[in-house]
Amino acid sequence: MTDSFHVTLLGAGNVATCLLKTFARVGIKVDQIYSRTEASAKAAAAIVHCPYTTQLAAVTSSSDLYICSLKDAVLENVLTQIPDFGKAMWVHTSGSLPMSVFAPYTSRYGVFYPLQTFSKQREISFEEIPVCLETAAKEDMIYLKTFAEKCSHRVQEMDSVQRSYLHLAAVFACNFTNSMYAAAGDILEKHGIDFEMLLPLIDETARKVHQCTPDEAQTGPAVRMDHNIIDKHLFLLQDDAVYVDLYKRLSDAIYLRSKDKTK
Amino acid sequence: MTDSFHVTLLGAGNVATCLLKTFARVGIKVDQIYSRTEASAKAAAAIVHCPYTTQLAAVTSSSDLYICSLKDAVLENVLTQIPDFGKAMWVHTSGSLPMSVFAPYTSRYGVFYPLQTFSKQREISFEEIPVCLETAAKEDMIYLKTFAEKCSHRVQEMDSVQRSYLHLAAVFACNFTNSMYAAAGDILEKHGIDFEMLLPLIDETARKVHQCTPDEAQTGPAVRMDHNIIDKHLFLLQDDAVYVDLYKRLSDAIYLRSKDKTK
Repeated sequence: MTDSFHVTLLGAGNVATCLLKTFARVGIKVDQIYSRTEASAKAAAAIVHCPYTTQLAAVTSSSDLYICSLKDAVLENVLTQIPDFGKAMWVHTSGSLPMSVFAPYTSRYGVFYPLQTFSKQREISFEEIPVCLETAAKEDMIYLKTFAEKCSHRVQEMDSVQRSYLHLAAVFACNFTNSMYAAAGDILEKHGIDFEMLLPLIDETARKVHQCTPDEAQTGPAVRMDHNIIDKHLFLLQDDAVYVDLYKRLSDAIYLRSKDKTK
Repeated sequence: MTDSFHVTLLGAGNVATCLLKTFARVGIKVDQIYSRTEASAKAAAAIVHCPYTTQLAAVTSSSDLYICSLKDAVLENVLTQIPDFGKAMWVHTSGSLPMSVFAPYTSRYGVFYPLQTFSKQREISFEEIPVCLETAAKEDMIYLKTFAEKCSHRVQEMDSVQRSYLHLAAVFACNFTNSMYAAAGDILEKHGIDFEMLLPLIDETARKVHQCTPDEAQTGPAVRMDHNIIDKHLFLLQDDAVYVDLYKRLSDAIYLRSKDKTK
């Protein structure tokens, strides 16, 4: 077992970019980067000053660890074009793909799933990100964990089924939450109010669930089914059928939930 | 114009409690607290060591400023029972009630609306909270602003129409967002995964919209209409018709929105 890792990274998207910045910081050596397009491959390689390729046939087999940070729909096709899987370990970073996508090609495979929302313009401290690991072979878990713990101090094992539910929950907690911010932003924009006004509220809403459960944290007209306010809001929204529908459904869900919990 | 304020507070709920803690901190004198129930009146009064009453007939008229922090549905009825409005200024803290609820009783009235989600168990630093002010008489705005700026450094004027849209937007950004956290928590709980795992993701989702718009911040399967993942998620949710429906609607809304924006 060695503590120095030589990595090849397949992909140059948001997750890959964040990983490369982390590798640069913690001193993990990147041997090669593959990306389909020259521009993204070059930009990614510049972060760690390493060679890159846009040809899968040119992916070398000399690294210890191959990390595939590609779109789910792309990964399976990419794997069919890898010339030599060698003796290295192969992992992907996907929340929803099973690790068995690698099974036809090698026996040393697993998953390195960082649970976070990645955008190129945001600098994220990777050490705070929960990373879920899974490996086909038990002895590879020790290897992968040693690697992961160089990047994050929130590493844990998780099987493919649990990971798929975690990923689903993350869609609600992040993607759908952001769509609520977008709806709020729409409403404000139409009435000349600065989105910035909502930031202290957005922050506190997030902070609250560090201390209490979402059910305990729930406030607003829906939880007490305040028809007075709800009817006013539906009236204000009347020109937008999608938001009216969403407002009603979410309010009903919040109310039913609070009734269930207080039974 | 004086910088020392004598306040009477009607209400002892979450907003009132947070206000009282702020008044204690910045040295605003509370003359009297009214609440319908003895226990809550007593608990509120203990924060600032002042007299309290549970009888509207016993509300005195000697304060400079009367702050009504009551449920919208209750306020109008409460006002009919106030023995003497005197020469003081009257405000409420509601996002959705117009200030004109006071018009039958006095000419010195307005709104002091703090935009935040309040829970008794959370300590909130009031100075960061945006406070929206409105007054019937122009000269009272100077008075109310002087008062509000003792409590918060994010004070601004806003009329009743804008305030009602801001309040509506806040329901999306806070109450509905929290219901997304609750849905995520449900999914995790059913599969034995700790809600804590989501906290770095929840925090980053909130932080992102400090730096970019919600549209720029949007990630996940819906924004790229990744049917591969979406179908998997709908399969995982299949036992819960409400979540299936919500997942589809929110994903469609996110996708349509991103298509519109990139046209």
